[in-house]
Parts: sequence; structure tokens; C-alpha cells
Amino acid sequence: MTVYTAPIDDMRFVLNELLHAETLTELPGYEEATPDLVDAVLSEAGKLCEEVLLPLNRTGDEEGCTYENGVVRLPSGFKEAYEAFVQSGWGSLAADPEFGGQGLPATLGAMVKEMACSSNISLAILPGLTEGAYHLLERWGSDEQKAKWLPKMVEGTWSGTMCLTEPHSGTDLGLIRTRAEPADDGSYRISGTKIFISCGEQDATENIVHLVLAKLPDAPAGIRGISLFLVPKFLVKEDGAMGPRNGVACGSIEHKMGIKASPTCVMNFEDAEGYLVGPPHKGMRVMFTMMNDARLAVGMQGLGLAETAYQSAADYAKERLQGRSLSGAMAPDKPADPIIVHPDVRRMLLTMRAYTEGGRALAAWTALNLDIAAKHPDDARREEADDLVSLLTPIVKAFLTDIGSECANLGVQVFGGHGYIREWGMEQLVRDARIAQLYEGANGIQALDLVGRKMGQHTGRLLRRFFHPGMDFIEAEMEKSEMQDFVLPFAKAFGRLQQATAWIAQQGLRDPEEAGAAATDYLRLFGLTALAYLWARMAAVALEKAGDDETGFYRAKLATARFYMTRILPQTSSLFAAIMAGKKPLMELEAELF
Amino acid sequence: MTVYTAPIDDMRFVLNELLHAETLTELPGYEEATPDLVDAVLSEAGKLCEEVLLPLNRTGDEEGCTYENGVVRLPSGFKEAYEAFVQSGWGSLAADPEFGGQGLPATLGAMVKEMACSSNISLAILPGLTEGAYHLLERWGSDEQKAKWLPKMVEGTWSGTMCLTEPHSGTDLGLIRTRAEPADDGSYRISGTKIFISCGEQDATENIVHLVLAKLPDAPAGIRGISLFLVPKFLVKEDGAMGPRNGVACGSIEHKMGIKASPTCVMNFEDAEGYLVGPPHKGMRVMFTMMNDARLAVGMQGLGLAETAYQSAADYAKERLQGRSLSGAMAPDKPADPIIVHPDVRRMLLTMRAYTEGGRALAAWTALNLDIAAKHPDDARREEADDLVSLLTPIVKAFLTDIGSECANLGVQVFGGHGYIREWGMEQLVRDARIAQLYEGANGIQALDLVGRKMGQHTGRLLRRFFHPGMDFIEAEMEKSEMQDFVLPFAKAFGRLQQATAWIAQQGLRDPEEAGAAATDYLRLFGLTALAYLWARMAAVALEKAGDDETGFYRAKLATARFYMTRILPQTSSLFAAIMAGKKPLMELEAELF
Repeated sequence: MTVYTAPIDDMRFVLNELLHAETLTELPGYEEATPDLVDAVLSEAGKLCEEVLLPLNRTGDEEGCTYENGVVRLPSGFKEAYEAFVQSGWGSLAADPEFGGQGLPATLGAMVKEMACSSNISLAILPGLTEGAYHLLERWGSDEQKAKWLPKMVEGTWSGTMCLTEPHSGTDLGLIRTRAEPADDGSYRISGTKIFISCGEQDATENIVHLVLAKLPDAPAGIRGISLFLVPKFLVKEDGAMGPRNGVACGSIEHKMGIKASPTCVMNFEDAEGYLVGPPHKGMRVMFTMMNDARLAVGMQGLGLAETAYQSAADYAKERLQGRSLSGAMAPDKPADPIIVHPDVRRMLLTMRAYTEGGRALAAWTALNLDIAAKHPDDARREEADDLVSLLTPIVKAFLTDIGSECANLGVQVFGGHGYIREWGMEQLVRDARIAQLYEGANGIQALDLVGRKMGQHTGRLLRRFFHPGMDFIEAEMEKSEMQDFVLPFAKAFGRLQQATAWIAQQGLRDPEEAGAAATDYLRLFGLTALAYLWARMAAVALEKAGDDETGFYRAKLATARFYMTRILPQTSSLFAAIMAGKKPLMELEAELF
Repeated sequence: MTVYTAPIDDMRFVLNELLHAETLTELPGYEEATPDLVDAVLSEAGKLCEEVLLPLNRTGDEEGCTYENGVVRLPSGFKEAYEAFVQSGWGSLAADPEFGGQGLPATLGAMVKEMACSSNISLAILPGLTEGAYHLLERWGSDEQKAKWLPKMVEGTWSGTMCLTEPHSGTDLGLIRTRAEPADDGSYRISGTKIFISCGEQDATENIVHLVLAKLPDAPAGIRGISLFLVPKFLVKEDGAMGPRNGVACGSIEHKMGIKASPTCVMNFEDAEGYLVGPPHKGMRVMFTMMNDARLAVGMQGLGLAETAYQSAADYAKERLQGRSLSGAMAPDKPADPIIVHPDVRRMLLTMRAYTEGGRALAAWTALNLDIAAKHPDDARREEADDLVSLLTPIVKAFLTDIGSECANLGVQVFGGHGYIREWGMEQLVRDARIAQLYEGANGIQALDLVGRKMGQHTGRLLRRFFHPGMDFIEAEMEKSEMQDFVLPFAKAFGRLQQATAWIAQQGLRDPEEAGAAATDYLRLFGLTALAYLWARMAAVALEKAGDDETGFYRAKLATARFYMTRILPQTSSLFAAIMAGKKPLMELEAELF
């Protein structure tokens, strides 16, 4: 069976000891986010995830969502669990108190998201989307729009969606056909069909606020002719009372590999009343607020599932008796040793653990910079933090979802044949994790974002936000003998990343296909190196605390760091070689011969 | 949608041009296996797979098997498709004509298996198991047993199973509790519960021949006290007529991640009549005949699914219009270019293709040696071939099933969001492929077999069966300028493999945990290097034929070979580094701290 206990100790370590998140209280608006409050939030949210969300995860997968005449029902218990989640305030943790939110840091919000995804990713998607829609409206909505829509969304009584994809138009949104006709009253009439709309219809909230990409009659062709509209399921009267049903309906739901308790809807818009959000024809820019938010949130999905896979596999490996240790029986009084004695089982567990703990540090570092970018009084600090978030967003999305799938698959492997049986729960993690590599921009698109946009932005300024602290760290720690196990491997990977970066930047200028050919391997190289940076920093902290280590927490950190450096990080050498081979091996074969 | 056309051209290339399989006709008993006959078999079997097996693959997955009061029903159409398959003789291709088989080479049988797995792995499992049981009985059964059981199995009227696993005993079969009590008539009474029994019960055959591991009353403890029994579902009278139902019944079927059209059964034996096969207490040795057979067959499952994933993804990538080529519009008359213009999509397709075509060559090379080991008149040639098969069996099983899953996942990724939707069929490939890494000895067990048994056997003689031809090839081709792109990378990987082999052999003698710690990475290093050897040989053939290349077949081989060498094979450098890091990073953390 899968098991999950919210990893509060590790979150506390990342926040307090690695990132010194107590400095968050120095940011205007976050004065109350003291370590004690953060601790209390993590404990309470963790308890709800363990006790309310987790028990519904298997049943939700088996039961799935149902569709009947336009009505979509979530599996049994999901509406109640959703209500418990939002009523505790976990959905609106980071929302502005002006609209009823708790005004807490995104750093904390990311960790609550991780826990929700660990225990029940299908359920976590609903408040996650609402939060993304909230951020978009908070940033781009008129004051009137904000006053009308945000409080109920923050409350969780209404939810949000993002409606982008059409059957012939996914990655390439310039092809969308949904139209928006201006009406006499300043609103618009939206018509068209959207597919793959997560929570496009469901029975857990009173209203659904769709954020829809559509084209105005005078729109320029392609991606520069897209506008964004707010289209509610039920119209809302001036006094806030619920009005009639709008011209939007769910035509069907998809049958999917996983996240079966989260409905994926075909949404039909027929002269639906909608309201322009942000400037006309600038819908992609507006939607990007939500997409960036969603990309980080999807990264948390990968991380959350990896954590559950790790905990479950470690638990199983300590219990399952099978075979004997190669160095002699470890439990001679039992019919066999627990399988955790076997080096190859440990390899799998440590791989999962090193990715998960490293990924948590990466996600928290990114979220902390999101908070700094939003709140810091100093312009330069804000810009710096915003640069780092922009740079790391595609990495958090793609790398953490890739490792989410890898860890889920390793978890199945540790369980052996039982991993393949539904009732054990491990195969569900694989199916649930798989979507995260596909939606919110497939991982190949994240890689193109990294090499094609982020790398060159402001002549490499974003890159320097990672390279400078990396170099500073190497210089500061290089000479310390106790840090050799960690700094040297990191420095080696870092050198490869710098060299690959320079090569891609140069080649890409000459021929963008060269950058495209390197993109996916480069993103992984970057992710692995970023984790090495964070593992080396975690090792530095753990070395300092090693004297006072009753529980063995710091010893485990150091052992996992050493494992990461010696058995995972070497991947960077093959990625580097593959990148430097260039585009030719990819492009020479004619399309017809595939 | 998934598409599949039997890859006859590539099979022909591997058989005739790479491996010179026409030499099979020189082996006694295979005189009729001429290239023409082989061609005819491949075409006919391929047609049946495409036209009969493939159309049932999706419906079988959706409908699944049903269980009611001990009766298990396959999905609609499966019984008929199974009958068409066995009546065409594809199930008994390699069986001895004495028992009604066609007496054709295993090399050909492997390719037919691949095609069956490509089109419908759930269905392919049933005749595959029967074939394994056939081989076991042919090798170990008494003349009476053979005469009684084999003809109906070859015919496909009766099927076979292997009953090893019990709830507390999977990898560690020494723990089994199933008992066999001698009866007065020389038979035995078998009692116990077996789980995970593929096709343990089904409605497509008239009888089921279970091969069951159990312990005799005087059995020594552990793995050396296991015997093997033939336990039929229905007893068979002396005259061959069907007798009463035996004391074996299916208690339930598992709900699984995939291969849903293949029932996985809990089998209860209650004083079931059984017959000893082979010597008492030597059941593991006897069962290994079937396990080795099954391991090669499972490798074909990985390969078969990889082929379907590749073909489907390539087809989709040529059709799906989305975005524009980074080097300017390729299809300016269309709203967008087909996604095959994008380097990253090509990276995914070529990865799948390089693994699949290379894997087919590896599987065929192994099967060819199986034929030589079985039929060659010269003892030395037989021994040499048998050594190579022993060495490559764990690699074919683990490496080809790992790449099966990798390719299935890449296929989903090429389809983007559509890959996650059941009706498109791609996610089923991922679910179906996943089992192959788990059953017939989880892949970690294959790796231990390689480093713990095969590596040291006959003081390294098995290894030399690969190392010698590898070295000879390098020496012969090294100086040819047109072969530089292929020989140099292969030689580099080959050097790493030799060095890692020497290191593991040395360390492993001193401390078996060192070999265990290296095992999985070493098996992959070996698999990648073996594929490099075969790709280099295929490139040599293709270079010779490049002048006469109307279809572009040889050009595609060369391009894929170059891709393999430059973008896949570099993995060997990181595997080498991980291996050489040794066991310490795996073993230092105390089990309680996981």
C-alpha cells in the first residue's frame, strides 16, 4: 500500500536551515510569516492531507468522474474533502487579504501544494487551478472584475479554469478558432470548442470561472491576435447574486491514463457571455501569468508524487522479507532479510530520495524568489529574484515532472509484481505522474523556453542569477577539506553546464535548430546541476550540525548528498556529450523515411 | 491512434544481411528454413497480427477479463483470435515435428513473437507460455509425459502455465510452502496457493497444463528442496480422453495496471493430482528451462511494444500540424508544419528507432545462437553459442524491457496531451510495457544474474563470447575511413565495458555487495555496448549497399546508426562513472534512516 506522512522535518530544514526563510518576515506583508506560524501551517495542512485527502486517492481512481447530460460528478467524498481543504484556507494561502486570502508567502504555498499532490493529485488540481486564475485576475483584471470575482474564488466557493487548447491547436495556440463578438453592453459573445479543460465542469463549486482564449473579429492572424475572456458558468448579477446559466457546457469528459478523479472536459461555448481581461490581442501575455503559475504548480505535482513513491517504497523495502544479504544474513531469526539489505534496492530508494529532497530544495528556492520578486522593497533585489524565477520555471516544471515519473516507476520496481497490481496503489502513482510531463506545455516546450527565451533574455542576465551564486559557492567552499565530496562534483557539473551554455548560445544565434536539438538534454543538465548546487549547500549545513544529530537527520542528508554526487550527477557527462554532438544526427534523415 | 505494420523489411535485413541466417539451413533439422520460407512465414504471421490481433488490442484493454465462480473469461474476440493464431501454426513454429510442430528455427519464432507482442501483448502471452511449458517438458519430461501432453499443447488446444510465486515468496523461491504428497499410484497430491499466474485460468483452451513448484515431504530446506510437478486442470485418461476436473481452481484475478486482457490468477491447489517432472528436489533447475525461454520471450514483449510506439509516433509526427520549423516554414501552404520538423520530436523518434532496430538485431543474434546451440553438429560451436545465449539472456530480458518502457513513454510524449487519452492507444503501451520489467525475474534480478552468475561462469568464458567478436570487429574495421563514425564510438564504449567488467569481477570476488551495487548500471552499459556493436555491424552492411538504395532503407540505417553513436551511446560514460563509485554510497545509510 502507499503510505504518506507529510515530510515536515525536511520542509523545516529546507526553509529554516538551507534558505533562511525567516527573512521572509522582513518583506512588507509577510511580517507574520514567522517560523512558528509556518510550522503550524505545515503541520495542520499536512494532517488534512494525510487524513482527508489520502484515503480518497485510491477510491477516486477506481470510481473516476461521471458525465451525464452535461453534468460532471466527482467521485464519492471528493466534494466534502475539497470543502474541508478550502475551508481550512489552504487553497487561498497566498491570496491577498483584501480578497479574503491569508496573504502568506508563496514559499509556504508551494509546500502545501506538494503535500496535497502527494496525497491526492486529482483533488489538488481543482484549488490549484483556482489559485492560478486568481493570480491572473489579480494582475490583469479591472477593479470591478476583481471585486466581483475574486472573493468567492479565494473562498473556494467558485473555481477557475484555463481554456486554451482546441482539437487542432495545442502547443501552437496561434491556430485557435474560438471567436469573441463584441456585444452592445461592452461584454462579448464567445463561441468555440475547447478540449483538455481540467475541472471544466464539476459538482464541487457553485460557479466556475473560465479564462478563455479567443479571437476578436479584428484580430491579427496567429499568436498576436489572441485575447483573454472571463466566461462564467453562471452569470453573476450586479448585486453578486447568481444569475442564469451562461452559454457554456461540458460536451464530454476524457477517459485517461490517470488523474481519473479530476475531470478533463470538452467545453462548448455558444454565444457565451464573456468579459475581456487585459488589453485586446494581448491574451497570450495575460494567460502567461496563469501559465507560469501553473508550471510551478505542475512541478509540485511531480515532486509530490515522487515523495509518496519514495515513502511507500522505503516502507515496503523495510518490511518485505525476501532473500539474504550478500554479506550474510541480517535477520537470521527471520525466514529472509528485508529487501532493503540489497544494494540494488538501495540504489532505487536513494535515487528517489536524492531527487525528491533535492527537488524540494529547488522548488522552495524558486518559490522564495517568487516572494522576494513580489514583495521586496528594493527594485534590484526584485528584478534579480524575478530573473531567477523566470529562469528556473521551465526547469521546475520539466525536470521535477520527469523525476516524478522516474521515481514513481522506481517505486513500482521496488514493489516487484505487487507494484503492478492496482490495489497496492503504486501503479496509480505512475499513471498520475505521467500527465505532468505533458500538460501546461509538454516538457520539450519547457526546454525550448529555456534555450530559446530564457537563455538569451537581457543578454544572459537570467543565467547569471544562477551562475554567480554557483561560482561564489564554489570559491567559498573549494578549499574546505570536509566539503570536497560535494564541491568537486558540483564544480565539474557546473563547468559542463557553463560550457554547454556558451556553445548553445553561440550555435543558436547562427542556427536556432542547434538550440532546439540541444534543448531537452540541456534542461536536464541544468536541473541536475541545480540540484547538485542545492545538495552541496545542504551538505554544508548538515556538516555544521553533525555534532548535534540525535535522530540521524543530518547523517542521512550527508549520505544522500554523497549518493547524489557519485551515482546520479555523472549523468551530466553523457548529457554534455549528447548536446555537443549537435543537430546533424537529428536532422539528416528525411521525414519520409521515418 | 496506434498503427502497426509488421516490419518485414527490417527483419529481412537483420536475418539475411546482418546475420546471414541462410546458414540456418545447414543445421540438421532446419534444412527447409530457406530465406524464401522465412519470408513467407514472416509475411503470413505479420498479416494475421495486423488484421486479427491488433484490432482487439484496445477493446481487450477496455473490456478486460472477468471472473465469476472460478470461471475466467477473456475479452470478446480473444478466443477466436487465439484459435486463428494457433491454427495457423504460429504458436508451435519451433516445436518438434514429432509432436506436431513445424520444427522451424527459434530465430524465426522470436520474430513472430515480436509481431504478436507489437499487435496484442495480452493475447501473445497465452501461446508464449504454452511454448515455454512445451520446451520444459520436451527437455525434462518422460517419454510417456511427452507423448501424453505435448501434441495437444503444440496444437494449442491445451495451454501451459508456470506456477512459482506465492504471496510471501516471489524472488526468493526457497520460501515456498506448496506441498506435494506422494500418492500410491506414483503421482502426487499438490496443495498450496500460487499467485500472479498468467493465464492460470481462461476460456480459450480445453485444458491447462500447470507446471508447479512444490516441496516433497523429505525436501531439504530452501531453494534446493523444490520439485516440479505437472498439474492439469482436467485429468487426462490413458486413452487421451478428458477426465474429471482436478483439484486446482482459480480463486480470483488481479486488477492490474495493464495487460488487462491477460488474466493474472490466484490459483488454489487442493490435493490436486500432479506428476513429478525431472528429478526430485531439482525443480529449480528444471524450471530454469522455462524461465530462460520466458526471459527471452519477455524481451520480445519490450521490443514489440517499442516498435508499435515508434511506428505510431512517427505516423503522428508526420500528420500533426503544429508550429513552424525553426529554420522557416516547411509546409507554407498549410496552417502549420508537421511536428516532425522539430529537432526535439526527431530526438524522441530516433531514440525509439535506434533502440528498436538495435534491439531487434540483438534479439535475433541471441535467437540465432539458440538455434546453433540446439542443432549444430560441432560440440565446440554448440558450446560457444550456448555460452553467448546464457550471457545475453538477462540483457535481452532487462535491457529490451527497459527500452520498451522508455519507447512507450516517448511515444506518449510525441502525442502530447492526446497520448494521455485512452482512445488514442498510446498510454496503453506504457501500461502494458511496464509489466515486462517486473515479471520473469525483476530487472534487478537479471542484473544480478549477469554479474553474479554469468560473469564468473567458467572463469569468464561466457564474457569472451562477446568480447572476442567485439575486438575482432574493431581490429578489422578500425582503419576503414568510412567506418570511423561507427567503430570509434563503439570501441570507446567497449573499452569502458571491459574496464568495468574487470573491476567488478575483481571487487566482486572480495565483496559480493560490490557486484550487487554495480549490477543494474553494468547491465545497461552492456546492453548499450552490445547495441553499439550491432549498429556498427549494420552500418558496415549499409555502407556496402548504399549505392543500390532505391527506397532509402540503407540511408536510414546509416542515419540511425550515427544518431545512436552520438546521442545515445554517450550514456555509457555516466554509467561507467556510477559503477566505479562502488558500493559505499549505497550502503552507508542505516536502514532505519530510510
